[in-house]
Amino acid sequence: MSDTIRLTPSEVRTLAEGTLKHWGFGFDHVDAIAAMLATCQLDDCQSHGLFRLFMCIETARQGRAALAAEPVLTLDESAVVRADAGGAISLRAVQAGLPHLVERARRHGVAVLAVNHCYHFSALWPEIEQLTAQGLAAFSMVPSHAWVAPAGGTRGALGTNPLAFGWPRPAAPEPFVFDFATSAFARGEIELYARAGRPLPEGVALDAAGQPTTDPQAAMAGAMCTFGGYKGSALSIMVELMAGPLIGDLTSLDSMAHSQGQPEAPCHGQIIMAFDPERLSGGAQEESDARAERLFAEIGAQGARLPSQRRFAARARNLERGYVEISEALHRDLLALRD
Amino acid sequence: MSDTIRLTPSEVRTLAEGTLKHWGFGFDHVDAIAAMLATCQLDDCQSHGLFRLFMCIETARQGRAALAAEPVLTLDESAVVRADAGGAISLRAVQAGLPHLVERARRHGVAVLAVNHCYHFSALWPEIEQLTAQGLAAFSMVPSHAWVAPAGGTRGALGTNPLAFGWPRPAAPEPFVFDFATSAFARGEIELYARAGRPLPEGVALDAAGQPTTDPQAAMAGAMCTFGGYKGSALSIMVELMAGPLIGDLTSLDSMAHSQGQPEAPCHGQIIMAFDPERLSGGAQEESDARAERLFAEIGAQGARLPSQRRFAARARNLERGYVEISEALHRDLLALRD
Repeated sequence: MSDTIRLTPSEVRTLAEGTLKHWGFGFDHVDAIAAMLATCQLDDCQSHGLFRLFMCIETARQGRAALAAEPVLTLDESAVVRADAGGAISLRAVQAGLPHLVERARRHGVAVLAVNHCYHFSALWPEIEQLTAQGLAAFSMVPSHAWVAPAGGTRGALGTNPLAFGWPRPAAPEPFVFDFATSAFARGEIELYARAGRPLPEGVALDAAGQPTTDPQAAMAGAMCTFGGYKGSALSIMVELMAGPLIGDLTSLDSMAHSQGQPEAPCHGQIIMAFDPERLSGGAQEESDARAERLFAEIGAQGARLPSQRRFAARARNLERGYVEISEALHRDLLALRD
Repeated sequence: MSDTIRLTPSEVRTLAEGTLKHWGFGFDHVDAIAAMLATCQLDDCQSHGLFRLFMCIETARQGRAALAAEPVLTLDESAVVRADAGGAISLRAVQAGLPHLVERARRHGVAVLAVNHCYHFSALWPEIEQLTAQGLAAFSMVPSHAWVAPAGGTRGALGTNPLAFGWPRPAAPEPFVFDFATSAFARGEIELYARAGRPLPEGVALDAAGQPTTDPQAAMAGAMCTFGGYKGSALSIMVELMAGPLIGDLTSLDSMAHSQGQPEAPCHGQIIMAFDPERLSGGAQEESDARAERLFAEIGAQGARLPSQRRFAARARNLERGYVEISEALHRDLLALRD
């Protein structure tokens, strides 16, 4: 590839850490955010790797986010762990809450981590993979901003509302993991179409008048559609409810109002659930694992791919060769964030 | 309407109960199954109302289902309730487990009911509505038979795998509820197209060679597709894992093998989760309810419909007029089940 530069994993982290420190993020936040971006970059996920530093720094620049707030945990004997981020970026609060979520999932069979009052811009799968690495099944959802119209609607009311799930596979090199937006397109994809001047496919966006459009500029001024018609729309509403009001936090409509039109990351909550297959299978875990593996084998035998296979392949390749590649332009713009 | 007959709600139950008793179902099973069918019939859900008696009786006729087995509950201090149906129809086991699920969700904030070793043919929303009526959010999933191909695949590996969710709305006449198959079409819909000799829409089915088809007969010999492309496929795999191996029960592949080609209901497990909004919102339930209602109001203001609105309208109308309508042909065939 031309016009790219190579960074070792530790150079990726150092680049992120330096930028975050420069902008005043507290030590633990620098660590949690840089770890997330490096994990995504290692998987060649350009949209959620170092590129996300721009949104992160823009959020700092707006001056409303708490850059060094320590999360406040609420722990009791129940299966619910609360981590109040206190208006900081979500990642430090998630890291503080996860060990307690794991402990409670093992104790009760199922547990919920409610992360509250956080700015959120990250992928969900790295957190899911931390739970599958502990032998737990996991499920996570977040709202965002009200950019997505419900099926049959005319304007934004729902977030891009990603939904992520993981299943541990003790006998396989990687877990089963997916993490996708319930919008038909990611918002970043529409921006890419707009920049390239290419028309959108049918059925992914509405214009400002609520009419279907394939013009990416009109779509940016209008609303995105959910994937899968009324079913995807119902799921998106579920994400709003589970990751918002259920845990005492904002919907995407609330979050958009909170942002007052500023280009900062959405501010809301995140729900993470963990399930202990050993407890839930009633001691039949070995047989259950074998059943799951037979299903994965049948899917593979048909030539169908499991989700995340491209990411896992990129990770293996980048780990083996010892570097990731990013474009020189991105690298230059990232360095300029410290000016 | 011509060629229909009117049945009062109590006549619906009596018809179901008489048929179930005739075929040897135990008292508690008669009660649980008839209640489910009557609930669906009241909502004008023809596919899951009295019509389901055919599958129920066919399952009894095959002689492998336990018609009178009492469910065995496993209860401990954890957030997991197990209800082993012992090879009976699922509904009695669900009814036995639900009060304990409610109690544990209130105690721990979240709880799981694992229903095992059951024949399953019913809609999920009536069980979801029992939980929303207790002020809990709820989530349920079941596998079925391996009739559905994964995205990029060529043959059945996944079930129709419905996914149902409910959110209590204390201030509204009905809860927010959805219950849909993760297949693009319900299997019953394809049968209806086949009977009517109508071609299927594009993208819902494959033929026996794994090629896309619009011929409903070819689709019955081939496989259905999931809704929403690779995202719906990922969700369907999640349903397999959560409602199968996670709770120590069968996948749709296992269930299909178990049935040995006999026309009985699929035999597997069911997972039901309940969430206590009071605990999970950290005491902010009133504010959270208001946030959820603002979202519902915005969706309604756009002219978009919430899921289940048609069902709720049918229920209100049928309750008010005091009867449901079914076709004379269905009524005649149902009466013949006792011959």
